[in-house]
Amino acid sequence: MHQRQLVIKAPRQGLFEITHQIAEVVQQSQLARGMCHIFVQHTSASLLIQENADPSARADLEAFFERLATSQAHLFTHTDEGPDDMPSHIKSALTQCSLTIPVVDEQLALGTWQGIYLFEHRLQTPPRRLFVSVFG
Amino acid sequence: MHQRQLVIKAPRQGLFEITHQIAEVVQQSQLARGMCHIFVQHTSASLLIQENADPSARADLEAFFERLATSQAHLFTHTDEGPDDMPSHIKSALTQCSLTIPVVDEQLALGTWQGIYLFEHRLQTPPRRLFVSVFG
Amino acid sequence: MHQRQLVIKAPRQGLFEITHQIAEVVQQSQLARGMCHIFVQHTSASLLIQENADPSARADLEAFFERLATSQAHLFTHTDEGPDDMPSHIKSALTQCSLTIPVVDEQLALGTWQGIYLFEHRLQTPPRRLFVSVFG
Repeated sequence: MHQRQLVIKAPRQGLFEITHQIAEVVQQSQLARGMCHIFVQHTSASLLIQENADPSARADLEAFFERLATSQAHLFTHTDEGPDDMPSHIKSALTQCSLTIPVVDEQLALGTWQGIYLFEHRLQTPPRRLFVSVFG
Repeated sequence: MHQRQLVIKAPRQGLFEITHQIAEVVQQSQLARGMCHIFVQHTSASLLIQENADPSARADLEAFFERLATSQAHLFTHTDEGPDDMPSHIKSALTQCSLTIPVVDEQLALGTWQGIYLFEHRLQTPPRRLFVSVFG
Repeated sequence: MHQRQLVIKAPRQGLFEITHQIAEVVQQSQLARGMCHIFVQHTSASLLIQENADPSARADLEAFFERLATSQAHLFTHTDEGPDDMPSHIKSALTQCSLTIPVVDEQLALGTWQGIYLFEHRLQTPPRRLFVSVFG
């Protein structure tokens, strides 16, 4: 069980690719075959595996989640931390706080077009703690 | 591999915190370092990690999912078990039937504000079987 | 760690039950107790555990996700691969690219009404690579 904490600050609200950082932890573990688990220790940022070829897919995804999460904004009561707070919790609930990916030949067994993304939901983009475990 | 079945009945429809019950299984396992996996053996209840500080965040989340899942209620054909049946399956599909959380120093490596919730979607709140596995 | 790649082609867009194929990999592993992890190596198909008793629940789920994912279709910019491309990424983001299920007595510890589904989002239904890991 190889475990490591990463601290990552997204440059802006939205999807920020972290495939490279996770692949590096997998390589350091020197595990030939097993699983990689990524856990985000926050409730206003999440994780997503998505297409990493065409940036327009990311832009449309970000816009979709923003419109969906704010469509009921006039009904929110949890508003002390600003208008992006409650939509952040909703986007987190609709996506993932953890991902598990197979490791084969010391590499993440991702599909050709799959990238791992930190989905930052706050406008301020605070540093985020991710906990990566490699085992098998 | 330490495995244990829990039976939990939520007091009402919505988010019910179960962090304490899961932490207890982790302590019983006496595993220093590894993973904790929680699986709900139903399709009308699910799991969610969310903010456990301010109850208003939970209330807004419950209301958001209720409105989203019932927004197309007039089009449902699967209605034999009552008006909360199909929205239950939708809320389950939009959230998680399983969670995996790292274990460090015999404790769940949750972030400061993260709590584990059983998300009960039925009005009747039947007892729910959860299967917890601790390994590493 | 028992790992195997499956290639599955859904007969049509929507939910296609694959419980039997996954159970077969678990049996081949001869693991008495542990975990089964399923990973889909694509961003336009996903995985879901849902009710496998009444087909009307599946039809309503498919229709719900179709309407939700296409509700903002007039705003999409990622449209080169056809009108079902961007909704595919959205449905994938809203559901799961991986599932983890406990294994007990050499069997998947699914609830009575739970089935494992490949959720095919493209109209063309290309063959899909799934990576199954059984460990413990």
